[in-house]
Amino acid sequence: MYKIRQVTLLEEKEISQAVVGRLPRYFRYLGELKDEGVERISSQELSELMKVTASQIRQDFNNFGGFGQQGYGYNVEYLYHEIGKILGLNKTHNFVIIGAGNLGRALGNYMNFERRGFVFRGIFDRDESLVGQEVRGVKIRDMRELEQFVRDNEIDIAVLTVPKTSVGDIVDKLVQNGIRAIWNFAHVDLNVPEGVQVENVHLSDSLMKLSYNINRYMKENDS
Amino acid sequence: MYKIRQVTLLEEKEISQAVVGRLPRYFRYLGELKDEGVERISSQELSELMKVTASQIRQDFNNFGGFGQQGYGYNVEYLYHEIGKILGLNKTHNFVIIGAGNLGRALGNYMNFERRGFVFRGIFDRDESLVGQEVRGVKIRDMRELEQFVRDNEIDIAVLTVPKTSVGDIVDKLVQNGIRAIWNFAHVDLNVPEGVQVENVHLSDSLMKLSYNINRYMKENDS
Repeated sequence: MYKIRQVTLLEEKEISQAVVGRLPRYFRYLGELKDEGVERISSQELSELMKVTASQIRQDFNNFGGFGQQGYGYNVEYLYHEIGKILGLNKTHNFVIIGAGNLGRALGNYMNFERRGFVFRGIFDRDESLVGQEVRGVKIRDMRELEQFVRDNEIDIAVLTVPKTSVGDIVDKLVQNGIRAIWNFAHVDLNVPEGVQVENVHLSDSLMKLSYNINRYMKENDS
Repeated sequence: MYKIRQVTLLEEKEISQAVVGRLPRYFRYLGELKDEGVERISSQELSELMKVTASQIRQDFNNFGGFGQQGYGYNVEYLYHEIGKILGLNKTHNFVIIGAGNLGRALGNYMNFERRGFVFRGIFDRDESLVGQEVRGVKIRDMRELEQFVRDNEIDIAVLTVPKTSVGDIVDKLVQNGIRAIWNFAHVDLNVPEGVQVENVHLSDSLMKLSYNINRYMKENDS
């Protein structure tokens, strides 16, 4: 905890942003090790398992104080819980899903999020024929109820699964009513004020990357 | 096209890997500009729109020959089609979905992939009560039919939406039957031979990043 306090705020932010993308993967591997009954693991062993360098692991962990003696390896359970806390998984976050189409309903039905403290509280759609149906015991509500619901139910996170044409108006309403974060599945980059966190899951972009890599590999191995 | 032929194969690969993640986003913005009837755009204008530096854009495009004169700006339609070709979107890729749970069915129902040349050909599950049901006109098949189906139907891409415990065995079968790429939604990193492309969509990891950023922002603004 000492080292990080010496760097400037700007550097602290940069360190965190580079590392944050890797934290969930550490958390995932440590959870598996814990479930397998592994008590201690060295950065070298973790490195081989995760296929990243041991020095990368030590550097990443040093951003958060290092998590214990390297000579004896890391205590798996301790490290798992510490990284969980850093990720905010010891807290509860209420979320709503906006858009009750296939993807919205699939995400609502996904139980694993709850295990991590993400609680599915509401789902909204413009389509009146969907309103009143249920997704895992949660009623689909009319989009016009969204603002009031976000205010009344301490909603932190909105999951956006609507077509991109509807996004602008909805995001404005969410921001005005105090949303902290948007998990964005719409195929558009969002404009939000500072302080509202956005994480994009652009599925088509991801599929295009796959397509690129298929074709590159075929070209390289045909010639 | 001249410059890229001078670099070594290793360098060419590195350039591509850094750039490839950004190509789908260029493609998305250019598609929108094209739909709005914009004919030409300078790297400066594109930079403001996409919130990346103009020099980043020029550097990225230079990997593929530059796409035309910078003084006059880029021809939007030409650039859109060229990037589409680089991404392999002018070709057809057949895909199967493995796992007919909520996420698998949601992805099967998603029409936009077809617009990009990704054709939904089959969906498989172990659960016999699901077999025979349909997802957008495609019958859910028994997992035991998977290998034969992949061989017989020129399947390039397998979309994995099964629990992580079932993954290893399935991936082996896919690889043995000539799959080119795996779009992996299972919460586990895959071991595949060189030549099989993998693109991970770890939804829980993404949600954890969001959680981290919410909590970091709250901490920074409380103290």
